[in-house]
Amino acid sequence: MEQKRPHVVILGAGFGGLRAAIALANAPVDVTLVDKRNYHLFQPLLYQVATAGVQAGDIAYPVRSILRNQKNLDFRVTRVTSVDVAAKQVQTVDGVIPYDYLIVAVGGSTNFFGMQSVAKNGYGLKNIEDAVGLRNQFLTMVERAVQEPDPDKRRAMLTFVIVGGGPTGVESAGALSELVHLILKKDYPKLNTKEVRILLLEAGPRLLPVVPESLQEVTAKTLWRKQVDVRVGAKVVDFDGEKVTLGSGEIIPTNTLVWAAGVQAASLVTQTGLKLGSMRRIIVESTMQAPDHPEVFAVGDAAHCEWQGRPLPMIAPVANQGAEVAAANIINLIKGRELQNIQYKDKGAMATIGRNEAVARMGTWEFSGFFAWVFWLMVHVIRLVGFRNRIMVLLNWAWEYFFYDRGVRVIMPNIEKQLKQEQ
Amino acid sequence: MEQKRPHVVILGAGFGGLRAAIALANAPVDVTLVDKRNYHLFQPLLYQVATAGVQAGDIAYPVRSILRNQKNLDFRVTRVTSVDVAAKQVQTVDGVIPYDYLIVAVGGSTNFFGMQSVAKNGYGLKNIEDAVGLRNQFLTMVERAVQEPDPDKRRAMLTFVIVGGGPTGVESAGALSELVHLILKKDYPKLNTKEVRILLLEAGPRLLPVVPESLQEVTAKTLWRKQVDVRVGAKVVDFDGEKVTLGSGEIIPTNTLVWAAGVQAASLVTQTGLKLGSMRRIIVESTMQAPDHPEVFAVGDAAHCEWQGRPLPMIAPVANQGAEVAAANIINLIKGRELQNIQYKDKGAMATIGRNEAVARMGTWEFSGFFAWVFWLMVHVIRLVGFRNRIMVLLNWAWEYFFYDRGVRVIMPNIEKQLKQEQ
Repeated sequence: MEQKRPHVVILGAGFGGLRAAIALANAPVDVTLVDKRNYHLFQPLLYQVATAGVQAGDIAYPVRSILRNQKNLDFRVTRVTSVDVAAKQVQTVDGVIPYDYLIVAVGGSTNFFGMQSVAKNGYGLKNIEDAVGLRNQFLTMVERAVQEPDPDKRRAMLTFVIVGGGPTGVESAGALSELVHLILKKDYPKLNTKEVRILLLEAGPRLLPVVPESLQEVTAKTLWRKQVDVRVGAKVVDFDGEKVTLGSGEIIPTNTLVWAAGVQAASLVTQTGLKLGSMRRIIVESTMQAPDHPEVFAVGDAAHCEWQGRPLPMIAPVANQGAEVAAANIINLIKGRELQNIQYKDKGAMATIGRNEAVARMGTWEFSGFFAWVFWLMVHVIRLVGFRNRIMVLLNWAWEYFFYDRGVRVIMPNIEKQLKQEQ
Repeated sequence: MEQKRPHVVILGAGFGGLRAAIALANAPVDVTLVDKRNYHLFQPLLYQVATAGVQAGDIAYPVRSILRNQKNLDFRVTRVTSVDVAAKQVQTVDGVIPYDYLIVAVGGSTNFFGMQSVAKNGYGLKNIEDAVGLRNQFLTMVERAVQEPDPDKRRAMLTFVIVGGGPTGVESAGALSELVHLILKKDYPKLNTKEVRILLLEAGPRLLPVVPESLQEVTAKTLWRKQVDVRVGAKVVDFDGEKVTLGSGEIIPTNTLVWAAGVQAASLVTQTGLKLGSMRRIIVESTMQAPDHPEVFAVGDAAHCEWQGRPLPMIAPVANQGAEVAAANIINLIKGRELQNIQYKDKGAMATIGRNEAVARMGTWEFSGFFAWVFWLMVHVIRLVGFRNRIMVLLNWAWEYFFYDRGVRVIMPNIEKQLKQEQ
């Protein structure tokens, strides 16, 4: 009897993949969840790792612990190289995994829009390595600047350019400003904070397009008060590691560029042969199925799903809602029932800009300031996987809040002995 | 007046370097402390990072924060390449630093005793990269073993060889056993823990030579109860990444060898031209001065200092006591006073073997079990630099103790964007 149960393979243990796995816990199927990492990463707080607010392990939780009690699930840590949708099998570096149903939930990666120089010299902010690398860069630049006699070189070291006016860019700029002005200032008596320049560049006409205009203004004003130089209509065209070139021809000398201006589906989707839409996402119906492959589903940042004439955005609530629909429809297909369509519920949007400062929209309700900040804290701590991680993150935040301190200001070089599978 | 103050350069921000810097806080000197890392590392707990007990950031604390209020001190993050004792200057990758007095406190590094194969394929346990690399290795081996059908390969993956019966080897073996049998067992229902083999190999006749024989027996018995296979008189001669070869000719198939069997002074000491003693340490008088260079001091793991006919051991209390003497003698030289000699006080020795289990000797007082374990906890938490780190480590330990859990079971690959100075 065990042999006859349909086999569901889920690629990716992010928000979508985990949610789908859990939704299939009591279904008459065997589930294999595959990820190249052994942990689920709470991506919304990556910027806090980059700005020394929390440790990497605080926002990464072992997948096996989350799904410990799910009897019909097998988790495999391996790297998927391609999907053969005709043969219904997934190719991994450790062999082939056949499936009856597939959920592609591989998530997103940084989209540099073909700018090789920015990809090579800039920092993305999509995974732990990005975040720790960026923290090392921020701290190293300050460390070197205080020893640098040449004022031009010193200015370039102390200029930090963040590109992208969405939540990640806004949150990174606010947190970096507080790291410099509230914390590093105390550690570096020689640091002239007037020489520090944090620029937030947005190519479009305004910050946070997902919130109403009044909140956009609050955001810009708050960042300004935190000495972040906000520029809209500023398009980056090149970054050679020493200077950023804008579309206008303007040159900004800097050693640090954070690219938070674009995401696209992870590269694996190009190895599926499936039809791709915007941001190279797999085009799916409102049932989350690929059009010619009813047994193949895509969710989250890997899926292009039209809703009211536009593709759904690449955010966590879309991943969660899509995963629920995909899991339900696999059960519906097995039981011969009618399929359901996604009914997207907009949960709103929010961004924190620093101590006591956030903006939030829920439906038509919008608010900002201290209350929005507390709300942001609550939502993020509740969503953070793992009771222990929640406690640790809360304690870290409480410490930092009351003592104007950050715990993780250590520059950690690379890990020399690499995983064999990563080589 | 500022110009005329003697310039003291301290190389290394470990126990010895930090202690010397603090001891010179009110002296009429200018101090430059140099380290290639921006953090002080609490090395005694590295094995807990390796076994997923605490995060790397919990045992690393920014040097600048520790010495924030010391007015006569400048801290520089740079790599020292050599010391020219004739010209009285230190060569770094960022230029030359002249000194009037020098304290070499560069610490120790793993000593593989010339065994290239072990150095290449084994893991040391002297820095953060070692510890995180080893944690990755432990977790990856278990992850791969549960997918491995070949029983011989699986056994090799699940065999962990720890070499060296000193405190580091004993503590690592005990902690790894608890990680496997108390924690990973729950995460990996497919893992047959009877296939897991943890070997502790000691070339000499007994474990923990620094404690009395009765405690050595307690240690061996406790490890045995934790299913650690303890072998004395077992000398490793080769490790090719797939099997360990012993001096007796015996072969142990394994993918993981932890080398905790030897330390030597960090390699910089060979670039000083100073006379080296055992474990390539700089030979110093009981005043901590190099014989022909009264302005050059060496302390801690970098110093070979005879005491009662034998060189002092490479442990933290020796580093701290030597640093106090070196700092005092620099002041004595400046003021034309008589120099003092080190009067080594043996603070005893201890090792923890796991939950509720430790052995300790203080003077002639020796004890083991729960009380020794609580004592070990207290000493280590009190010594851990930084109030915040102490709280975090205590909370982690409390959590693990009561919930039989470990927080940091994440396999983190290398950080792709490296520090420029590390390249």
